[in-house]
Amino acid sequence: MKKSRTDPLPPEDELVARLTRGLPSSARTHIGPGDDCAIIRIPGADLLQLFKADAMVEKVHFNRAMSPAAVGRKALARAVSDIASMGGSPCEALITLVLPADLPFSWVEALYAGLSQAAVLWGVGLAGGETSSAPPGAPVVISIALTGEVREKDAVLRCGAAEGDCLVVTGQLGNSFASGWHLNFTPRLREAQWLVQHYPPTAMMDLSDGLARDLPRLAAAGKVGWELDLSSLPLREGATPAQALTDGEDYELLFTLPEARWAGLAKAWPGAFRGLPLSRIGRITPAGHRQPELSGGWDHFAPG
Amino acid sequence: MKKSRTDPLPPEDELVARLTRGLPSSARTHIGPGDDCAIIRIPGADLLQLFKADAMVEKVHFNRAMSPAAVGRKALARAVSDIASMGGSPCEALITLVLPADLPFSWVEALYAGLSQAAVLWGVGLAGGETSSAPPGAPVVISIALTGEVREKDAVLRCGAAEGDCLVVTGQLGNSFASGWHLNFTPRLREAQWLVQHYPPTAMMDLSDGLARDLPRLAAAGKVGWELDLSSLPLREGATPAQALTDGEDYELLFTLPEARWAGLAKAWPGAFRGLPLSRIGRITPAGHRQPELSGGWDHFAPG
Repeated sequence: MKKSRTDPLPPEDELVARLTRGLPSSARTHIGPGDDCAIIRIPGADLLQLFKADAMVEKVHFNRAMSPAAVGRKALARAVSDIASMGGSPCEALITLVLPADLPFSWVEALYAGLSQAAVLWGVGLAGGETSSAPPGAPVVISIALTGEVREKDAVLRCGAAEGDCLVVTGQLGNSFASGWHLNFTPRLREAQWLVQHYPPTAMMDLSDGLARDLPRLAAAGKVGWELDLSSLPLREGATPAQALTDGEDYELLFTLPEARWAGLAKAWPGAFRGLPLSRIGRITPAGHRQPELSGGWDHFAPG
Repeated sequence: MKKSRTDPLPPEDELVARLTRGLPSSARTHIGPGDDCAIIRIPGADLLQLFKADAMVEKVHFNRAMSPAAVGRKALARAVSDIASMGGSPCEALITLVLPADLPFSWVEALYAGLSQAAVLWGVGLAGGETSSAPPGAPVVISIALTGEVREKDAVLRCGAAEGDCLVVTGQLGNSFASGWHLNFTPRLREAQWLVQHYPPTAMMDLSDGLARDLPRLAAAGKVGWELDLSSLPLREGATPAQALTDGEDYELLFTLPEARWAGLAKAWPGAFRGLPLSRIGRITPAGHRQPELSGGWDHFAPG
């Protein structure tokens, strides 16, 4: 393929920033592009609406050697993880499939079986969708649109971290591909809902592209810096600290909360979520103080 | 490409029917898969929520020779047309793009410019989205998730046609590709909203795959038949009656209303929408009475 050298796609964060600058917004839009989900204020509704789209592309996010049921489950899990990271609950999903003409129907049926089982598990209604053909050989695309709901006082944004807050992560990081975690993880829905009730985070997001890429996003949103204690990173079996930073697809919660609340949280957590690590991995500093500087992580549009 | 002869994708309607059978639903879901949009009843909300996903795939729905701004406009217009066909108004959209690595950034910027202009035109807020890379040479995919709202008493479903109702279509049919209509049409948003206020249709849908494919869908939803007067089809310049039936991408409203209301509608219409034809093209009959039998129209998964 000829590559357009003079006009290439920029790195993912820059691409999104340039495309979403100055987009027309609706009066109902409480939070637009830039967080894990959009937040919409629906007239009369008891709760705020969360709205998320997520796509998985064959040969980028999955391949045909993987179980199609697991691929379907993961497609929904990724979107549910974003709803969770705002403190919300998922509601209804629409499933869009782009199917090359040479795809066996049994593959699509198994994908839907995985989607359906996952939907039941996480309380999602599958309200419809769309299928389109694609030329033979084109990658399969699975695009999910998911709504959610959250009480206004419970909604947690990326931007709320304050200087001195401690930086906390659920579960373990790194080695998500070799371990199979990337395909069979469970979104931290119950954990996030428990947190917003008992120890409300000041900021929260889910870790999808690796801590090295996602922490700077959380810091940029809050106009703060960080001090990360690399020795405290919770490593998945077989993962090095470098992999915990950059492998991506951890789907754990990264959140901040006031220093004074950490001791209480650390004490209450094991009673609520036995066996699931909760790790304090650093603290929030003033903007410009970044220790260590971070780079790497997953960039969709990085030169290959 | 090797084609899977023993397990091929079935035709589009059968594919969707088989995939959406028995899907888990949410208690809030008023209308699930099978209509132009899903309808969700949000607790406390003043209005019902409409929810639609639509995708356009390069080499199937568009190509790089077309203006990317026009492609972006069309992507949103198609989803708005579905919201219109339920009698609703569009609210917020999420834009998902799958971008092969060899795509020039200027193409994506122009696409977004077209999307933004269209969003302003039809009162849609662009609340965010998702971008993913794809292997070089993969088709660009544009997937739109769009919410809308409609008063419960105004919502028009596909299934409400009754024996004796007359069958009506807005605008002109056929030749949508050569004429450029498929790319620059305006969704019948104002027309549909006027209809639900003044002459509520008993059933309505938008014509995207051609009357020959879409009328049987409306009839099947209502468990009725049809008598179509082929000599009354409103033909776009250059279109034959056969093309008006099967070309597709007309994006006009197909609706039914009680016979007794037709005269009043036909009289009031030109004052509301000067220059836009409104044609009575037949009537609804008992199930099993189909005159003429219809076949053809656009099928995404038809053997090529």
